[in-house]
Amino acid sequence: MSAAAIVFGVGPVSGVGGAVAIRAAAGGMPVYVAGRHPDKMAAVTAEIAQAGGSATALACDATVPAEVEAVFAAVAAAGHVPGLVVFNVGGNWPMNFLDITPEFLEGMWRQGPLAGLLVGQAAVRALLPAGGTLIFTGASASLRGKPMFAAFASAKAGLRAIAQSMAREFGPQGLHVAHVVIDGVVAGDRVRGFLPGLIEGKGEDATLDPAAIAETYWQLHLQPRSAWTHELELRPFVETW
Amino acid sequence: MSAAAIVFGVGPVSGVGGAVAIRAAAGGMPVYVAGRHPDKMAAVTAEIAQAGGSATALACDATVPAEVEAVFAAVAAAGHVPGLVVFNVGGNWPMNFLDITPEFLEGMWRQGPLAGLLVGQAAVRALLPAGGTLIFTGASASLRGKPMFAAFASAKAGLRAIAQSMAREFGPQGLHVAHVVIDGVVAGDRVRGFLPGLIEGKGEDATLDPAAIAETYWQLHLQPRSAWTHELELRPFVETW
Amino acid sequence: MSAAAIVFGVGPVSGVGGAVAIRAAAGGMPVYVAGRHPDKMAAVTAEIAQAGGSATALACDATVPAEVEAVFAAVAAAGHVPGLVVFNVGGNWPMNFLDITPEFLEGMWRQGPLAGLLVGQAAVRALLPAGGTLIFTGASASLRGKPMFAAFASAKAGLRAIAQSMAREFGPQGLHVAHVVIDGVVAGDRVRGFLPGLIEGKGEDATLDPAAIAETYWQLHLQPRSAWTHELELRPFVETW
Amino acid sequence: MSAAAIVFGVGPVSGVGGAVAIRAAAGGMPVYVAGRHPDKMAAVTAEIAQAGGSATALACDATVPAEVEAVFAAVAAAGHVPGLVVFNVGGNWPMNFLDITPEFLEGMWRQGPLAGLLVGQAAVRALLPAGGTLIFTGASASLRGKPMFAAFASAKAGLRAIAQSMAREFGPQGLHVAHVVIDGVVAGDRVRGFLPGLIEGKGEDATLDPAAIAETYWQLHLQPRSAWTHELELRPFVETW
Repeated sequence: MSAAAIVFGVGPVSGVGGAVAIRAAAGGMPVYVAGRHPDKMAAVTAEIAQAGGSATALACDATVPAEVEAVFAAVAAAGHVPGLVVFNVGGNWPMNFLDITPEFLEGMWRQGPLAGLLVGQAAVRALLPAGGTLIFTGASASLRGKPMFAAFASAKAGLRAIAQSMAREFGPQGLHVAHVVIDGVVAGDRVRGFLPGLIEGKGEDATLDPAAIAETYWQLHLQPRSAWTHELELRPFVETW
Repeated sequence: MSAAAIVFGVGPVSGVGGAVAIRAAAGGMPVYVAGRHPDKMAAVTAEIAQAGGSATALACDATVPAEVEAVFAAVAAAGHVPGLVVFNVGGNWPMNFLDITPEFLEGMWRQGPLAGLLVGQAAVRALLPAGGTLIFTGASASLRGKPMFAAFASAKAGLRAIAQSMAREFGPQGLHVAHVVIDGVVAGDRVRGFLPGLIEGKGEDATLDPAAIAETYWQLHLQPRSAWTHELELRPFVETW
Repeated sequence: MSAAAIVFGVGPVSGVGGAVAIRAAAGGMPVYVAGRHPDKMAAVTAEIAQAGGSATALACDATVPAEVEAVFAAVAAAGHVPGLVVFNVGGNWPMNFLDITPEFLEGMWRQGPLAGLLVGQAAVRALLPAGGTLIFTGASASLRGKPMFAAFASAKAGLRAIAQSMAREFGPQGLHVAHVVIDGVVAGDRVRGFLPGLIEGKGEDATLDPAAIAETYWQLHLQPRSAWTHELELRPFVETW
Repeated sequence: MSAAAIVFGVGPVSGVGGAVAIRAAAGGMPVYVAGRHPDKMAAVTAEIAQAGGSATALACDATVPAEVEAVFAAVAAAGHVPGLVVFNVGGNWPMNFLDITPEFLEGMWRQGPLAGLLVGQAAVRALLPAGGTLIFTGASASLRGKPMFAAFASAKAGLRAIAQSMAREFGPQGLHVAHVVIDGVVAGDRVRGFLPGLIEGKGEDATLDPAAIAETYWQLHLQPRSAWTHELELRPFVETW
């Protein structure tokens, strides 16, 4: 039986998580998608099923240890062994520095380093010693802080440190830990909802196509262990950096 | 009346916080030291007083908003305006990755990004629009994660992101925000207590002298705004990196 | 007619340049390999031909402007339009710092920034405005200098700066400029010749398989412009970093 | 007799090299300034002499091995032992990427990595085993390439790699090698001549005061070996980065 993929942080079909799930299913893996919104995930699993793939949605708040454990337990109970785990949790909310409350900062931290730790620990337990791939979704804020994004950058930089620590420790044991820095606007429903017209205004291919992002995740998973990438960035061709 | 210095995270005279306080007092600033251990701070204030300086110890857990506010309120009540704020909170505890609990990670986060946010926000309110200096103490873990230090690196990287966000936002308003990466063992009582013989074993000047660290903090404070440093690292001459 | 690939810095079949050429040919591109050693290139073109691909070897010293121009002219004369250009020139020679002569440093520079500039300029002229991909081969020395490698690091860091400048300028015009940091020993004939037994001594998959490297180059070429990677690193799973 | 300072790349009093020389002299060091324009250096030495310091100008093209050697020989012949060497050679000329000639790139390289190597090697020979300080002047281009500055960035990144290699090798032997990233416009005669009004247009303290830069160089020299800084950046408070 082929190894399964588990994607944490799956929302709509148009999001990064959804696209990664669809790509993994197209690659022949049974896929488990985990997220807080069953209705959104249903569209993802439906699309996978329609294409002949296997997908299961599992409600999960990745900031809660027991819920993360439950996802891995459900996969095991179904007789699947995970070979690819993707951590795609967390959203970006701008906030004036002086308006950031401890609760807001903690919320970012919970979706970043804390959830990353929980999924990371469970992935180590489930994937080793056989080996496999664990991919974390980062952002340009993972690499630099800037006005309006202190809280988000703090969480993303902290998550990146966890990914890097894991790569150095578990890579030699056969776990390919990668961190993908998404630098730009993802052309998905989230942005369409919050900032209507933004995607079209930026021009053709000026925002990241989720399917294109997913393809790179998939290629990271396919890399043989003699030549692994730990970190790479993805940005539209017109993005300044 | 000359501007005051406030140092958060002051323990023994031999620590970084203590040394920075002593240096600021020697530079003529009335100094306020804030920390969780009044007994340790008493030695710092005594040394400053003996040298003819002015020092006040204020008990403070920098992870608690009201306690941070109370420190700034006490300084203001004494008629002082802060010109230098140093954030030196947080300690490094190694931990096996699979043994890191959510509570342990949260503890690191509270001493890192959370306390950094609280002190940073209060510093902005107290120092602007007049301007001044805010220095965060970092570590090599601020820049990279590695085995045994995922939690600490996560917190320190998150703190650095806050420092960087603040520098970009408040620098142009006159607040000099700096981040000092201490890369190596500090030759202080903390290490002497936990790892007896380590300092001597490494050899002369192979560990960081707190007074030498403090001198660089002080020089950062003295930099005129036409040529500010946001980040620098400090390491012993024999340290590999 | 499908776009052609030009690979500069092709030696033996077992090298990075040879492997990239073979991968591009397998992907359906007519391939031109350029290097200083026709005998080595002959083995590459033979392997490609045997697999049913199209390959042409062109003798070229990439540090000489006219020779670089001649390669592009030959491709054009054959009726091909290049869509992928790979710069894989330059070798790593350790040298005691005090023994580095101006001539040695210049030799490194000629194979690094100079040849990179020449190929880069020719690629811009040949690939724009249609667009395409230009990939530079880097090394861990591109990111950091260390003892014995001051000259090599100087050249590789300088080459990286050219790649980055090009990416920022020509990316928005449709030229995907990527820089691949190869961090580790490539399991090829070069190392087998100079350091016999090294590859076997490191263990299975502990050195970079050229075919694995080439696959990542190829995937970079396939990335759609909405989600490009400028830089990534490749290292064996057991490599420390 | 106190150790001497040698500053390579000294032009007008208003430049970085001149300011560093003046600061070192004020700190009590006999100073040697080396550059290609004796007339400009004469103003620097005159200012130092007027302030009661000791300064000697030596004509030197730092890209020529014999001329660099001659400077160190002259210092030794005068009975001085160097304790501080500053490499401040090289200027920034923007150039369209496609217009960069091999000669232009080589000129940048000669003033960057080549001259840096020559001065670096001579400094190692002259300062070790006693120890001392070697400071290289970098720029934001040392860290990143961008349009119009491929050649300059290539040279500055290459120079930085040499500085970093030297720091890792010779630091443990007692040579403090530092690299200062100057990020912004230096408020000196060079800019006043080429871009009249730029400094005033940017506003008060929005360009780097050479004396402020020099003070940081001097403080780097004073750092004890238990807490050295290898790299720091200097930028005006309003500079975006």
